[in-house]
Amino acid sequence: MASHRQIRLGVSMIGLGYHLAAWRHPDAPAGGNMELQHFVRVTQAAERGLFDMAFLADGVGIRFHDEPPGALCHTSKNVQFEPLTLLSALAMVTERIGLVATASTTYNEPYHVARKFASLDHISDGRAGWNVVTSVTDMEARNFNRDKAPGYDARYDRAAEFVEVVRGLWESWEDDAFVRDKASGLNYDPGKLHVLDHHGPHFQVRGPLNVARTPQGAPVIVQAGASEQGRELAAATADVVYAAAQRLEDAQAYYASVKGRMARYGRAPEALKIMPGIMAVPGRTRQEAEDKYAVLQELVQPVVGLGALSNYLGDLSGFPLEGPVPEPTNRRMHSRAQIFLDIARRGGLSIRQLYLAVAGGNGHRLVIGTPVDIADAMEEWFLNGAADGFNILPPWLPGGLEDVVEMVVPELQRRGLYRTGYESRTLRGNLGIAWPEHRRAGVKRAAIAQALGSAAQ
Amino acid sequence: MASHRQIRLGVSMIGLGYHLAAWRHPDAPAGGNMELQHFVRVTQAAERGLFDMAFLADGVGIRFHDEPPGALCHTSKNVQFEPLTLLSALAMVTERIGLVATASTTYNEPYHVARKFASLDHISDGRAGWNVVTSVTDMEARNFNRDKAPGYDARYDRAAEFVEVVRGLWESWEDDAFVRDKASGLNYDPGKLHVLDHHGPHFQVRGPLNVARTPQGAPVIVQAGASEQGRELAAATADVVYAAAQRLEDAQAYYASVKGRMARYGRAPEALKIMPGIMAVPGRTRQEAEDKYAVLQELVQPVVGLGALSNYLGDLSGFPLEGPVPEPTNRRMHSRAQIFLDIARRGGLSIRQLYLAVAGGNGHRLVIGTPVDIADAMEEWFLNGAADGFNILPPWLPGGLEDVVEMVVPELQRRGLYRTGYESRTLRGNLGIAWPEHRRAGVKRAAIAQALGSAAQ
Repeated sequence: MASHRQIRLGVSMIGLGYHLAAWRHPDAPAGGNMELQHFVRVTQAAERGLFDMAFLADGVGIRFHDEPPGALCHTSKNVQFEPLTLLSALAMVTERIGLVATASTTYNEPYHVARKFASLDHISDGRAGWNVVTSVTDMEARNFNRDKAPGYDARYDRAAEFVEVVRGLWESWEDDAFVRDKASGLNYDPGKLHVLDHHGPHFQVRGPLNVARTPQGAPVIVQAGASEQGRELAAATADVVYAAAQRLEDAQAYYASVKGRMARYGRAPEALKIMPGIMAVPGRTRQEAEDKYAVLQELVQPVVGLGALSNYLGDLSGFPLEGPVPEPTNRRMHSRAQIFLDIARRGGLSIRQLYLAVAGGNGHRLVIGTPVDIADAMEEWFLNGAADGFNILPPWLPGGLEDVVEMVVPELQRRGLYRTGYESRTLRGNLGIAWPEHRRAGVKRAAIAQALGSAAQ
Repeated sequence: MASHRQIRLGVSMIGLGYHLAAWRHPDAPAGGNMELQHFVRVTQAAERGLFDMAFLADGVGIRFHDEPPGALCHTSKNVQFEPLTLLSALAMVTERIGLVATASTTYNEPYHVARKFASLDHISDGRAGWNVVTSVTDMEARNFNRDKAPGYDARYDRAAEFVEVVRGLWESWEDDAFVRDKASGLNYDPGKLHVLDHHGPHFQVRGPLNVARTPQGAPVIVQAGASEQGRELAAATADVVYAAAQRLEDAQAYYASVKGRMARYGRAPEALKIMPGIMAVPGRTRQEAEDKYAVLQELVQPVVGLGALSNYLGDLSGFPLEGPVPEPTNRRMHSRAQIFLDIARRGGLSIRQLYLAVAGGNGHRLVIGTPVDIADAMEEWFLNGAADGFNILPPWLPGGLEDVVEMVVPELQRRGLYRTGYESRTLRGNLGIAWPEHRRAGVKRAAIAQALGSAAQ
């Protein structure tokens, strides 16, 4: 196995795939978003492809506006498994692939989140990751005693403290705290138990966590971090960033921006892997690849295309489909809305052209071509300061992922850019991220030793 | 398979077992409370015994006071898996046994809980159950922004509304809502989606749930319900009650009290299965059984025995071990404290004798003897209005459970009191509890039909 820098791969295995019309694809199981065997097949395909991780996006509510009316019932973006339960099940039918679940910091309690991910890390023997998000939609807010989502600053303040508390709880026990000596009856060494006793503006959490330190020391932390505060939080705490960019120069700027912030937190740039999303559609020929994608594009109904735009730009159904994209009066998610508008303005796109342009990757990079084309696209970003790896967004599942595993992975391996076998049993090990030293280990023992030393003088 | 009334069995598979010294038992894996394979073995043993369900107790924090100091580090009641992640994993290595997880209503949000149990029900193909509890200890409160637990009334008011919201969310979609017609592009029938829009004193939850209606219609609801409000909540909403009683007359009174309350909620008594806990210790002879139990009793250290009492009666370490149990000045959990005091008073027990008396079943019924003795004890309660089945509390795991499966189950089968094969693929089916009709199904369609009818007149 190569010791030089290698491309990391993840798969975002949302429901039937990323494309708006995925569930209508002839090869997709139409009800797969609620079928366990569908996800077993997807995760096992990714593991066959030696992917670092399978990633499960999530919302705490339906996050697709029924605007214009009829949009929602024509998509499959309605029901799904809850990520931590699903990934715990998938841990039992996989061996090496990392399992990353999204959990929101906005309507959760850190103690619950710390426990669940620690538990998944034990169940999977060191393959758990937490994708840290804030919940931005009012649709989700209404499931949690609110009418509207908290504002940007409030969400990020809470998220930063939330992550701090979770990381602290994961250090409740030192690695070798549990002696479990049946003869003496001592179960754990009390000097290796650390009570967090956190008191902050959002949370008061005493601890300790009632889960032992995990096989990875701590589950891997993943973030998206597009905005200013998001980048800062990622630089401070993330192991992996799931980025979104269409163009090399944007990806480079983002990469430099996040890595450049790490020094102030005492972190080396290599400690964080930046993995932009990429929708890769391989074919044996370019024509075959384009034909594959066209199958999906032709299945996008206008009501669904408008619905997809409405989630960011508001309802545009009052404007002509073939006309230009108007300046939106009701932007719903600022950073993604801006990506959509940039795409429209750069290409001079009509409303219909815009929704078709984002129907696949929802603003992520789209590459359609031969395995060589796709490997070229990845290599360019990987070698030019734009990416440490990629999150694959399959347009439909499982076929769209299986195509990447069977066609693109061998081409990356041929170039020496990708592993030919897993390096480690843990996600952290495969990503090449260092073991997280326990920040409080030895502190109590040092204090005791000092006290004993003083007494001896 | 018999069509007459049969005994239901569950197993409470807490950590290394129910006995205080379980982890020190020569055959117990000392670190099993954090070993997945330990729970795989336990659950598979219960399934071999055709148990209705495996039940996982839980606390959102360590719930064992370190009083007197040193008590906590000499028990294994410190770390554990989080129940929903663990049971999701165990769903993959079992086929028929029900999987019941405890989740607190005190520091959770109903939307999260509804999703996770619905997801587990889909993962397990209809074997999920939710043990509804309130969190009573201050130790848990301190992990959730509080210094003390809410009072009894506040906890039960919240719990009752919490269950109502969860049940409503589980009815967000009708069973046949998802048509998933690839040709027309219609994913679901909008007339079969129900928005909850709950506004209550504790919760404002719009819905819909982003999980389809589950294989069981709704996960099975389990409760303990010892107190007045607990009994009322159980009578109103529970499918199973996990009761605690030492004596036949107490169990009968409890059984009659809960079943007697059901009519006012329009429920038949058979709709609820009352299953008291029982610690059963079988041996080929009575002497062998007693010797087995003595192995554990001899491993109870005084500091741990006092610790176990302190959780209910406060710290008694200032009183002589061989002296009488004093009237406690610091009762921590009223109903269990009363059970402990009754045991002490009835037997005229010393402090040491009391902690040894409750070291096993923590106040639940204890039966040590031959398989015939244990089957007699179960049959007496089952036939005399005290129980519909039993939750087995194995003193240690997995051996204590395997003994019951291998010795007691065949005796119950010989008497025609217990199944010889599972009747159903779902927990609800095995328990013999009716399918929960969707309370809002057809409502929209009826309204539409009426509107169309009016228009036609």
